[in-house]
Amino acid sequence: MKIKMGVAKAGIKPSGDYDILVLTFRPSVYSLLLTQNSLAAAPVIYDRQLSEKTEKTFAIVVNSGNANAATGEEGYQNAVKMAKAVEKHLSLPEDSVFVFSTGVIGVQLPMEKVENGIEEACSNLTDLDLKLAAKAISTTDSFEKYYSTEGYIDGQKFSVVGIAKGAGMIHPNMATMLAYIFTDVDINKQLLDTVVKEVTEKTFNSIDVDGCESTNDSFMVVATGESGIKITGENIEKFKEKLYETALELAKMIVKDGEGATKLIQIDVLNARTEEEAKKAGEAIALSNLFKTAMFGNDPNWGRILSAVGQLHLDIDFSKVRLFIGDFLIYDGEPVEYDRQRAVEYLKNNSEIKIRLELNRGDSNWSYYTCDLTYKYVEINAEYTT
Amino acid sequence: MKIKMGVAKAGIKPSGDYDILVLTFRPSVYSLLLTQNSLAAAPVIYDRQLSEKTEKTFAIVVNSGNANAATGEEGYQNAVKMAKAVEKHLSLPEDSVFVFSTGVIGVQLPMEKVENGIEEACSNLTDLDLKLAAKAISTTDSFEKYYSTEGYIDGQKFSVVGIAKGAGMIHPNMATMLAYIFTDVDINKQLLDTVVKEVTEKTFNSIDVDGCESTNDSFMVVATGESGIKITGENIEKFKEKLYETALELAKMIVKDGEGATKLIQIDVLNARTEEEAKKAGEAIALSNLFKTAMFGNDPNWGRILSAVGQLHLDIDFSKVRLFIGDFLIYDGEPVEYDRQRAVEYLKNNSEIKIRLELNRGDSNWSYYTCDLTYKYVEINAEYTT
Repeated sequence: MKIKMGVAKAGIKPSGDYDILVLTFRPSVYSLLLTQNSLAAAPVIYDRQLSEKTEKTFAIVVNSGNANAATGEEGYQNAVKMAKAVEKHLSLPEDSVFVFSTGVIGVQLPMEKVENGIEEACSNLTDLDLKLAAKAISTTDSFEKYYSTEGYIDGQKFSVVGIAKGAGMIHPNMATMLAYIFTDVDINKQLLDTVVKEVTEKTFNSIDVDGCESTNDSFMVVATGESGIKITGENIEKFKEKLYETALELAKMIVKDGEGATKLIQIDVLNARTEEEAKKAGEAIALSNLFKTAMFGNDPNWGRILSAVGQLHLDIDFSKVRLFIGDFLIYDGEPVEYDRQRAVEYLKNNSEIKIRLELNRGDSNWSYYTCDLTYKYVEINAEYTT
Repeated sequence: MKIKMGVAKAGIKPSGDYDILVLTFRPSVYSLLLTQNSLAAAPVIYDRQLSEKTEKTFAIVVNSGNANAATGEEGYQNAVKMAKAVEKHLSLPEDSVFVFSTGVIGVQLPMEKVENGIEEACSNLTDLDLKLAAKAISTTDSFEKYYSTEGYIDGQKFSVVGIAKGAGMIHPNMATMLAYIFTDVDINKQLLDTVVKEVTEKTFNSIDVDGCESTNDSFMVVATGESGIKITGENIEKFKEKLYETALELAKMIVKDGEGATKLIQIDVLNARTEEEAKKAGEAIALSNLFKTAMFGNDPNWGRILSAVGQLHLDIDFSKVRLFIGDFLIYDGEPVEYDRQRAVEYLKNNSEIKIRLELNRGDSNWSYYTCDLTYKYVEINAEYTT
């Protein structure tokens, strides 16, 4: 895949680190999911309008350090200026560039710095360096989130690569903080939209850090078609598998890097009536502050897990429910004897924890991903304006 | 009002403190709201059945230190035993005693201790001491929650007194942790049910500590009729006012005592389209961990407030919204200049904080109450099984 990249340290971030990323590629089919938060950021509003006008994209521009959200008409005009600047410097046609921002809410972008940064990024294009690209879009992230994989269809190779950012204000609905995945398959927009929606539900839409949905959530998949592999209803599963793998790995990285988190927790809900029910149960557990603090304290406090599910007010018969923490059966329709000390050790010694909840009332399953709630989360969010 | 009280240190609480409360009074009309958590505790199930059988109550019994929740058939039989024990020791008719439990989930009650404690409490009845009664039902509470007030109807005095407990797992839905209010007015059950529901919506159902609805939430109002004042459609407002005052004061005490909390935060949402919308907006802010940690950090981080409301996906036009923190206008359709240092001082120097959000799209208002999220909350819930 020929994806060109430009980055700059424009001075939007007080730290002076990279805060502008421009990616440019051949005219490509894309699929774009944006936050449903009704306080949508200016770039989200711009991109929503743009996606109704065009089925192809030539480039994207991202700034980090400022979300350009709750910034009114001035903010919207600044998003337009960012797109226009890239179009000008790279000699691209009108309406070919999508714009993204992430960082503090409610502050106008320092446009002179932003425009200088974009000019600098556009005049120093290099080959795509996933790690550096991930760095340029990060804010409170403690590590760069990127992933790449390859697949084969009829003996021909295709690639899927992606970057993401996000650590706090993570409770995506239809999209997550910022994530971009590129692939070189040849696929039409309708088919791509369908598969991206499906994959997103099980990856970026099944993660939580703190229950707070962002104003800037955006997930974009770009298919350049360079591999020459034509994706059809026949071979789509092979592509979907790799797209899912990439999206899931990026999504899990976001949870793992959840603000202050020490543990990635996978909640598998089994044998629910519907997938929606299984997802809701997983989400309810993932959102419970009492559960998340117990996980931080290595406390197999299973009452908090069942109670969180009870809070959904579904007609679940808890005398049929089974609950495992790791491999330990903790509840089997009623409290059961288990080796509490060993369960505590399991929680203490692992940074990836599995919870399995069997509802035993149907055939649907779902996996939801969250992290623990720690002193550090409070510190990060009480001590700094982010 | 002649309400007799018995307490005991039965040894259910590891601390050895009071953990049994029996209150007995003349056969009285009552109104009872129980948790909607579908993992309802055994006493909640018992009380729900009992409330369908009888319109009068003679006594209540409460144990603290153990919630008798997720305890299966054995737990249910233990709840029955608690009611029967009080009926026996106080020579009350069958089906006249309501049962409540609060404390750790998923552990069977130590019934020998419980039954001895009930016997001791029933054989040492004294006049109602609100503070001691509140103490006997408390768990992680750091102070006793009680309130009393008086009103006049046609020159005749009536009383309203109440106790409550709760500090964590507070996000009531149709009822709160444990709260009991007694009044000596003479009122029929239907009228009492109506007014209690209305008052509960604006008090116990408008508070939050940590988003977690309890398995044992119960709120009961008992009207003994001893004042001889007959409540009718004509004079009900005067009674409702005092009931509201009592319920609101108790509800605010619960939030103030929220686990680890340093601040009681009142969120007034004004000019919404409907009361439901106003309540939802208040609740969304109250539930946001990002908002709650910002309040702890004395950070007027208003983007987190608006973003929480945006997460509701209502069609709110944020260019018409105004936001105040205390008396400081912070957002007026767009970011406005304000004295940030003085707003920080306001947050730093007050333990009761007011947030005012004007949606400017209707005539409905609502007040929601929450607390900040602190290191101490994480400590309490990570370090101890509660």
